[in-house]
Amino acid sequence: MAGKKVIITGVPGVGKTSVINETIEKLANENILYLNISFGSFMFDVAKASNLVQNRDEMRSLSKDQQKALQREASQQIAKIEGNVIIDTHASVKTPAGFLPGLPEWVLRDLMPDIVVLVEADDDQILRRRFSDESRLRDIEGARSIRDHQQFNRAVAASYAMLTGCTVLYVENADFLLTHSVEALAAVLR
Amino acid sequence: MAGKKVIITGVPGVGKTSVINETIEKLANENILYLNISFGSFMFDVAKASNLVQNRDEMRSLSKDQQKALQREASQQIAKIEGNVIIDTHASVKTPAGFLPGLPEWVLRDLMPDIVVLVEADDDQILRRRFSDESRLRDIEGARSIRDHQQFNRAVAASYAMLTGCTVLYVENADFLLTHSVEALAAVLR
Amino acid sequence: MAGKKVIITGVPGVGKTSVINETIEKLANENILYLNISFGSFMFDVAKASNLVQNRDEMRSLSKDQQKALQREASQQIAKIEGNVIIDTHASVKTPAGFLPGLPEWVLRDLMPDIVVLVEADDDQILRRRFSDESRLRDIEGARSIRDHQQFNRAVAASYAMLTGCTVLYVENADFLLTHSVEALAAVLR
Repeated sequence: MAGKKVIITGVPGVGKTSVINETIEKLANENILYLNISFGSFMFDVAKASNLVQNRDEMRSLSKDQQKALQREASQQIAKIEGNVIIDTHASVKTPAGFLPGLPEWVLRDLMPDIVVLVEADDDQILRRRFSDESRLRDIEGARSIRDHQQFNRAVAASYAMLTGCTVLYVENADFLLTHSVEALAAVLR
Repeated sequence: MAGKKVIITGVPGVGKTSVINETIEKLANENILYLNISFGSFMFDVAKASNLVQNRDEMRSLSKDQQKALQREASQQIAKIEGNVIIDTHASVKTPAGFLPGLPEWVLRDLMPDIVVLVEADDDQILRRRFSDESRLRDIEGARSIRDHQQFNRAVAASYAMLTGCTVLYVENADFLLTHSVEALAAVLR
Repeated sequence: MAGKKVIITGVPGVGKTSVINETIEKLANENILYLNISFGSFMFDVAKASNLVQNRDEMRSLSKDQQKALQREASQQIAKIEGNVIIDTHASVKTPAGFLPGLPEWVLRDLMPDIVVLVEADDDQILRRRFSDESRLRDIEGARSIRDHQQFNRAVAASYAMLTGCTVLYVENADFLLTHSVEALAAVLR
């Protein structure tokens, strides 16, 4: 029987990577195995294997149709994986032209996820985490803009559910309470 | 000519059943007839007729594909009904794995509703109604969780509208104002 | 190469027309040309050319299927236009039966926009603009109702993005700051 396909999303600074890594480790200790796939990296590997690009920067210069073809190819390959998979991606990406959906129809129809998880946090906490994270260069956004992004993610995730029948799970990742977020996610992934 | 197909939804405790029953009675007094179908019960009848299950508890143990097939069969049968129909169901169901859409694509394409109604109420009022309703065993949720559920329902209903072209109507069912909710709904169903 | 297809929406009173006209003028001064199409007027022209109607009032008496066919025909003709196009329409229309999506699936699949813009403003400012605009007869709505409409538009726009892969851009059109709104939109349309 096929495993669970769980898409995990969250705005920059929400702590998605920590939640994913600790949840996978926790479940591994219980002999529940999840493969962790970054959708973006997976797409890059597909593009590289097809000689479309040689480094990640070149990904941005691909045409819309090329990107769409890559998204589909990546989705189809991931869909074939047996066993449990976590797909680390974005519900939407904030671009200068507005919110870009991370899982448009042509991705969803191939992936057919069981669950889309939104890792969320208080807008203000996310703002402070971004300021204190000096390792990454991130655009400066206000708390209102972060709230808009998180709300857009909820709305677009609802449409993902309509198309695929997946559930949409909110996981709150509050300051000092990472273990709580991990337990909440692990409970569903067990 | 085919009648109106109206889907009526609302979170537990919002008073959906009262709104539906009183609206149907009110309209019946004006010789406007609506058939009242519970989508869940209808699915169960289809499952029973196919010898898939013998009681409602067994519905939960059906596979995802079986449930999907039942949803489609039920939708197709309901779509064939002539005259006005109210379909009593959920915009989404709150499950341990997150919000599950009540009307995924394969249901919508067959049902093609004219209107999706969200019966809504203040989160706090719903909370108090749930506490005082001793006849049903319901999970205890906070007001914030109820708000999230009602907001998810609005978002997912918007995607139902995109796919089918139906309208989305909010009907507020405030404490002591049931007659008002019924009149608001009846005005649209006349 | 095909130009940009930009759908611009906003609730009545938000100042959409001013934003569109000034943005087109600003860009024209930079030799960046956008054709400005009102989706409703375009549909009417299609209907008139097909001898379906003779004046705009008759548009409302068309059957649902006729309206759908007109929407599709209009979308297909607009999709064929080369060069940049602004399509002036509604994310949703508030009707007595609830919010009606302006861009249902059959429109989106033909139009395949690059960007859906939501021109937004504070609910209260919109309310005051409506009261002071004596040139148009508009239904009187409260600020809460305007907020619901703007929120529905965000939700339904998210589902448009899921289906087409377009981005969704919020442009705030605050009192006294039209030049700011125009600059924000022009920056994306350049």
